[in-house]
Amino acid sequence: MPNYPTESQIIARIRERFPTRADLVGLGIGDDCEWLKRCYPLVTTDCFVEGVHFDLRYMTLTDAAYRAMTANLSDIAAMGGEAGAFLLSLGLVPKRFVLSQLDLFMDGILECIHDHAATECFLAGGDVVRSPNSLFFNICMLGSVSEGAPLTRSAAAPGDLLVVFGALGQAALGFGLLEKGVKEERFSPFYDAFLRPKAQLKLGKRLRELAHAAMDLSDGLLQDCPKLLAQSRIGAEIYVDALELSELEREAAEILKLRPLDLALQGGEDFSLLAAIAPDRLESAQVIAKELGVAMQIVGKCVEAPGLNCYNATREYVVQSCGFEHFE
Amino acid sequence: MPNYPTESQIIARIRERFPTRADLVGLGIGDDCEWLKRCYPLVTTDCFVEGVHFDLRYMTLTDAAYRAMTANLSDIAAMGGEAGAFLLSLGLVPKRFVLSQLDLFMDGILECIHDHAATECFLAGGDVVRSPNSLFFNICMLGSVSEGAPLTRSAAAPGDLLVVFGALGQAALGFGLLEKGVKEERFSPFYDAFLRPKAQLKLGKRLRELAHAAMDLSDGLLQDCPKLLAQSRIGAEIYVDALELSELEREAAEILKLRPLDLALQGGEDFSLLAAIAPDRLESAQVIAKELGVAMQIVGKCVEAPGLNCYNATREYVVQSCGFEHFE
Repeated sequence: MPNYPTESQIIARIRERFPTRADLVGLGIGDDCEWLKRCYPLVTTDCFVEGVHFDLRYMTLTDAAYRAMTANLSDIAAMGGEAGAFLLSLGLVPKRFVLSQLDLFMDGILECIHDHAATECFLAGGDVVRSPNSLFFNICMLGSVSEGAPLTRSAAAPGDLLVVFGALGQAALGFGLLEKGVKEERFSPFYDAFLRPKAQLKLGKRLRELAHAAMDLSDGLLQDCPKLLAQSRIGAEIYVDALELSELEREAAEILKLRPLDLALQGGEDFSLLAAIAPDRLESAQVIAKELGVAMQIVGKCVEAPGLNCYNATREYVVQSCGFEHFE
Repeated sequence: MPNYPTESQIIARIRERFPTRADLVGLGIGDDCEWLKRCYPLVTTDCFVEGVHFDLRYMTLTDAAYRAMTANLSDIAAMGGEAGAFLLSLGLVPKRFVLSQLDLFMDGILECIHDHAATECFLAGGDVVRSPNSLFFNICMLGSVSEGAPLTRSAAAPGDLLVVFGALGQAALGFGLLEKGVKEERFSPFYDAFLRPKAQLKLGKRLRELAHAAMDLSDGLLQDCPKLLAQSRIGAEIYVDALELSELEREAAEILKLRPLDLALQGGEDFSLLAAIAPDRLESAQVIAKELGVAMQIVGKCVEAPGLNCYNATREYVVQSCGFEHFE
């Protein structure tokens, strides 16, 4: 018979797995607030609900936690920051949640921190509550910037090149294949892209010196790019012919009966970085991307007229929408 | 027919109600992170789920939001801090949530900030997600301390008096009466205590100079006090005869068929402050309490031997447990 834990047991287990960082906090679990020793000017938060943001039918709790951490780290990466303290709220479903699942969940958080070598990233507080039906969790992540202003979305200029660092559509391919029950060894890069996505923390810091503007691609290029353009009060052209698609991507898209280009344009959760870079800085960007082993592709150009247009050779490319809004 | 909003509409409405604090942030809504101009060493988070932490059958969304903000402000108050930036995650149930409800919710947040004169407290980010069944929300609150260390739970010493600032059990009376459907004008202080509780921000700051340790009472004196004792590695005696009970409290307790003393000992969510104060500082504490118009009562004394004992005149007082754990 499974052993359903009490709040105290849950907190005790969390305490075991996340040791107090005496170098970074003044207190540790047990007070009304945590007292941070450093200053974190960057803040972001993301919430994840079972059946909406993750589905335990084709991913583990470890995967879900990992992806959630990456989503938060990626927000910090997009600003050129360093991940610091985070707070974790857990909404657990009684009579379903046992301590071993909590361990799986914490595995994901800890593996994600480890894989990103985010040594300054640590749990600084949280809340554990009962949720009647759906498991959910919220992460609030604080970050630092070495000095000066962070990289933002608001200073892209007409003439800047739009550059994507990282994959486009691979996480969506992984998601689509898993949802359809397709499990083939050759598609493992796509499963990984979906289940264990990486935030571009190192790249973000380097882009701070180089790019006019940047953001992370969590909802897909076509849905996210307009947000950067709006903040910079400009428009852009995307050249869909320029998007690089591998043979494997085409094969996977075919199984999903989707156009590979639509996936590249609209697939979300790759956590690639989109940056607006002046043409004369392009070479430096290429050097950095090579150094960090990150794929880089020029996908378009910023223009003065507001709006985002996609071009396919000379004709306008008609996008078949497969975007969605989280709240509908 | 009600108008169910999209995520963009929700964010636009939130943006309207919470203007950007250009004095406190570098960006405003629209970037991957907010960029804070000040340093906030205190962090806390609290999560609230419909049917678990609030019930819309006997409170409005405005009340629920107000109480949630107070809970977070109270954590800052207990450390002697000043409330600063906060992040709000909303889990909304589609086909149930309309924009007018969002307004009611934001009314509660804004009224709470206003009532506490927390002029440095502002919305610095958030997330809006879909929740299939239960409405929930998470607040992550950051705070500052003027200089030096915050007030903590860990430096209470044997011989210190245990002092409660604020009411004990009034919120529980309000909750009990509302749940039972008892609505009488004379009980309005109890409804207020439950629906519009106040955090003791001003008092907390003053106690920082004066008390050895403090915490806020969110789960009731008997459940919370041991947490302070554990952090300070001491014990305490509570003198239940010393607890002040008004005639009105006795009458309300009688309607609820509960012993008034049990309510005072175990009723949660009063957000009163419990402090450990050296006897020679008691007079100063009384002056401060009088100045701020806060009720103050000595409820017990810290002792060396671990554990918490309740005494009724000479005999040991047998507590009839009505405490609960959020997660069971």
